[in-house]
Amino acid sequence: MSKTDRIYNFSAGPSMLPLSVLERAASEMTNYRGSGMSVMEMSHRSSVYIDIFQETKADLKRLLKVPDTHEILFMQGGATLQFSAAPLNLIGKTGNADYAITGNFSQLATKEAEKFGRISVACSSADKNHTYIPRQADIKISEDASYFYYCANNTIYGTEWKYVPDTGDVPLVCDMSSNILSVPVDVSKYGVIFAGAQKNMAPAGMAVVIIDKALAGYELTFTPKLLSYQVMIDSDSMHNTPPCYTIYMLGLVLKWLDEQGGIEGMEKIKAEKAKMLYDVIDDSKLFSGCAEKDSRSDMNVTFKTSSGELDSKFVKEALAAGFDNLKGHRVAGGMRASIYNAMPYEGIRSLAEFMQKFEKRELS
Amino acid sequence: MSKTDRIYNFSAGPSMLPLSVLERAASEMTNYRGSGMSVMEMSHRSSVYIDIFQETKADLKRLLKVPDTHEILFMQGGATLQFSAAPLNLIGKTGNADYAITGNFSQLATKEAEKFGRISVACSSADKNHTYIPRQADIKISEDASYFYYCANNTIYGTEWKYVPDTGDVPLVCDMSSNILSVPVDVSKYGVIFAGAQKNMAPAGMAVVIIDKALAGYELTFTPKLLSYQVMIDSDSMHNTPPCYTIYMLGLVLKWLDEQGGIEGMEKIKAEKAKMLYDVIDDSKLFSGCAEKDSRSDMNVTFKTSSGELDSKFVKEALAAGFDNLKGHRVAGGMRASIYNAMPYEGIRSLAEFMQKFEKRELS
Repeated sequence: MSKTDRIYNFSAGPSMLPLSVLERAASEMTNYRGSGMSVMEMSHRSSVYIDIFQETKADLKRLLKVPDTHEILFMQGGATLQFSAAPLNLIGKTGNADYAITGNFSQLATKEAEKFGRISVACSSADKNHTYIPRQADIKISEDASYFYYCANNTIYGTEWKYVPDTGDVPLVCDMSSNILSVPVDVSKYGVIFAGAQKNMAPAGMAVVIIDKALAGYELTFTPKLLSYQVMIDSDSMHNTPPCYTIYMLGLVLKWLDEQGGIEGMEKIKAEKAKMLYDVIDDSKLFSGCAEKDSRSDMNVTFKTSSGELDSKFVKEALAAGFDNLKGHRVAGGMRASIYNAMPYEGIRSLAEFMQKFEKRELS
Repeated sequence: MSKTDRIYNFSAGPSMLPLSVLERAASEMTNYRGSGMSVMEMSHRSSVYIDIFQETKADLKRLLKVPDTHEILFMQGGATLQFSAAPLNLIGKTGNADYAITGNFSQLATKEAEKFGRISVACSSADKNHTYIPRQADIKISEDASYFYYCANNTIYGTEWKYVPDTGDVPLVCDMSSNILSVPVDVSKYGVIFAGAQKNMAPAGMAVVIIDKALAGYELTFTPKLLSYQVMIDSDSMHNTPPCYTIYMLGLVLKWLDEQGGIEGMEKIKAEKAKMLYDVIDDSKLFSGCAEKDSRSDMNVTFKTSSGELDSKFVKEALAAGFDNLKGHRVAGGMRASIYNAMPYEGIRSLAEFMQKFEKRELS
């Protein structure tokens, strides 16, 4: 690889951004469109910045078809701070909430929520090391739950919810960090959607929150002001200086997403990309998938060989061939190819070929 | 101004960054030093990113002479979230704390802290619309205060503490958002120093926190995990994905600061820059300074003419001449020139000349 070449980066996040977006950001770095300054240097109250902010928000609203009942917020602290913000804002209604535990991050969210109220585990995939997504019939909703919480895609285990849980009148709260903008979502079904930016949206350092405005305004008394959904709604995410540059980057990514046919276009592309890898795995005598077939994620493809040693050999040789960050998370082992929106077809096609060649060599 | 020219941006924050830093960031945007990826795309656990992170932290430790008793944290949510984090982590010791109110942001911090304990106002400059900094003799420390809080530089009113308050055994907590890295600080005197990044350090979206490790670990039970200083110490600011790119930008700014002679060099430069403007104001028959002379900030120069109409005319003509964001904050009125570390000499010299010419025209 020469110094000018870009690598195929299969990191689970932060992860690849579209090259055209990075090139645009570089070209506008010292002087944004004749403003005489970088976006990084703009007052967040200036008209030039407000235009960037509002256009980004409008594009997100259009692409995700966010209804007027809901508000889009740009918050700091990634998804992790939303593990606190969601219960702080919502659990006061009844004092308890239901959580689905399907992986590492929903487990962390559950533990954090227990600080603020009584948490019931509505369903869990821990019995099979989170290799599957529970069925609707497995979900036990408490009558007085303030909300039901789940994580739409589990980056570590490579599983993804293929349906929206039916919870009756109990509002849905969903962490969509690792599959937002890859698949159409009926936002009206959700009380709160949140997502860390660093997978399908922008650099790390932000969470996008989409909230049914009717649920805001009931935060616990000791909620930090910046974590109050109502404060953020009232100030249009500018109670303090927002992560301005990250929002600008999101704006550039959304323009790129439009060029891919929007979320509907991306859904088709990502399904084709994931199929390329899953086909190799399913046809293989060396590789096997880690997740159950009907629960497989289109964003994080987890797989393994027959041994830990061979896994390590694969990861090492893949890196030398220009495929970075294929090692699985330490709690799951094996390999993981995170193929978010910005991973090009060519990266997947090359990896699929590399896997087939590796197998041929190993099994010959 | 042609499209390639940069403007002199006197914004109170986000504000100017050194041009050489922006150019470096642009040149490394699509491929950081042969890594094949942007810093924005790097896993925060990768060795290439860890090197950036640790070098930035080490440079900050060296430049600010942070003793080993203290830890440097990179947190999200800007200074505003620290208004919550400081009391959540520290007030549990006795249940109360003392606050100095010398402007808008210390007022906001006080109000937020009142959620978490009993707050005493140790001193206030509200009697003279925050145009001065209280003297040591004016500060009333409670015997059982968990900490004493103050804001080192008041961006809106243009005042700056010229001394470190003596509070005996009561730990000092200081918001240095708008003057950090402009003046040497004896960090060992402080329990907690925090600063939003977007003035002297980096783009918006981060707070640097420097904490005496002995004070951590006593947070209130309902503290969001990401706001726990102890959690952040134990995880070296990586409990979750940190704002990776903002930390990288801070690293570039610190290299630039080294070229200016470090903080000692910057102290000399910033004093000369501020003097240029204050000399014009003091020699003027049209302009007058808003803050009392012995309390004047070297970062935010506040001044006014004889009338609001003339102020507006000045701001408008200044903008046309390439000086942006000189309008004072709405609660203070008049003008404000924020001249943080990255504002070049030439920007100040040009503004000083422009002020003199404006005065000559108006008074002739």
